[in-house]
Amino acid sequence: MINFEALFKISYGLYIVCSGDKSKCNGFISNTVLQVTSEPARFAACCNKDNYTAGLIQKYAAFSVSIMDKDATPEIFGRFGYKSGKDFDKMAGMALNYGSTGVPIVTNDCIAFIECKLVQTIDVGTHLLFIGELVDADIWDDTKEPLTYLYYRQVKKGVAPKNAPTYIDKSKLVAKSKEPLPRKYECTVCGYIYDEANERVRFTDLPESWVCPVCGSKKTDFIEISRNI
Amino acid sequence: MINFEALFKISYGLYIVCSGDKSKCNGFISNTVLQVTSEPARFAACCNKDNYTAGLIQKYAAFSVSIMDKDATPEIFGRFGYKSGKDFDKMAGMALNYGSTGVPIVTNDCIAFIECKLVQTIDVGTHLLFIGELVDADIWDDTKEPLTYLYYRQVKKGVAPKNAPTYIDKSKLVAKSKEPLPRKYECTVCGYIYDEANERVRFTDLPESWVCPVCGSKKTDFIEISRNI
Repeated sequence: MINFEALFKISYGLYIVCSGDKSKCNGFISNTVLQVTSEPARFAACCNKDNYTAGLIQKYAAFSVSIMDKDATPEIFGRFGYKSGKDFDKMAGMALNYGSTGVPIVTNDCIAFIECKLVQTIDVGTHLLFIGELVDADIWDDTKEPLTYLYYRQVKKGVAPKNAPTYIDKSKLVAKSKEPLPRKYECTVCGYIYDEANERVRFTDLPESWVCPVCGSKKTDFIEISRNI
Repeated sequence: MINFEALFKISYGLYIVCSGDKSKCNGFISNTVLQVTSEPARFAACCNKDNYTAGLIQKYAAFSVSIMDKDATPEIFGRFGYKSGKDFDKMAGMALNYGSTGVPIVTNDCIAFIECKLVQTIDVGTHLLFIGELVDADIWDDTKEPLTYLYYRQVKKGVAPKNAPTYIDKSKLVAKSKEPLPRKYECTVCGYIYDEANERVRFTDLPESWVCPVCGSKKTDFIEISRNI
């Protein structure tokens, strides 16, 4: 039997991938960006076909990747990770740069960026792999560390959204302990659900300083909900 | 001007990617493995076209990915990272499992593995992206942490070999300080060169417990060499 927990041992960073131009743009949080060749420097960024940004990357033939700060604020995850640009202007109020290709580059809560022109689009099933050639890169703050997916999961208690390549349905995961049964807690501000079945930590064992990974609300803003929702 | 230092802010793990069967097999250390879809679970592994393992993955239509232990011994990097299976039997003496596809799975210095059958091969220039569908995965030791490329570079002082996707020629990197000029030190056991131009730490400032990242020899086994080699 496949032990899906093993997949959590693969290391990823967290990035805001953007495309578009000054009049129309969008971005999403991705953990699946990597360099695929050195000469020339090319990068792969994986994107769900349903993501609004997937269409923009193909239309504008370019994308930016902003490398997130380890200490990124919770609000940025809610904005770029759990909402769709189809019905929400994620870029409103963001501090944006525009690259030589014209694409926006999010600077909020990020420490560095790369900008790529699209050279190849590969269909890998539910997702597209965009292969981009490097046209620009820089570091904004060399004193800060990049955010890793492991840190996001273990310390920030974040979970992958359903359209992420690394989303794992909790029914596939081996239960760590049978008793007591896991409970669910809902953020009364944004609706985020802390599901103990996906977590290694009981909600009641979380520190009082813990905040909602989506909207940054306090632990006391959560209420326990039925297991049948 | 592109600041290639920014590329080091992208997070990677380190893996031993293998293919073949009991009679003929090989593997190499890769930092470029990621999940590309969730349903079904598919993974991309990037491999230089010149790598001996690239031919095996295509021939056997399957590959394994062993996820390296943070405390992996230096010897394993020399064996799988800097030598070619064309002229050296990397698998000799290794503790191997064999997956349901028949491919070998290296267990030494690793904490978990995934096994994939090949479903797609993509040419991205100097490298191939192998897309594999998950057929097995497990954790061998859940108490240990996965090795990251950042840790390998900063703590273990390792460098990417020339055929890695993330190899960066040092001439592209911004010099951190002009004086004194960087020096080179050679391991008299294996020939590995510690080049200060690629490192953030002077050789003389390395702790006495530092060892050659390739063969594990002591710091005292290194000699300073001319800058013109």
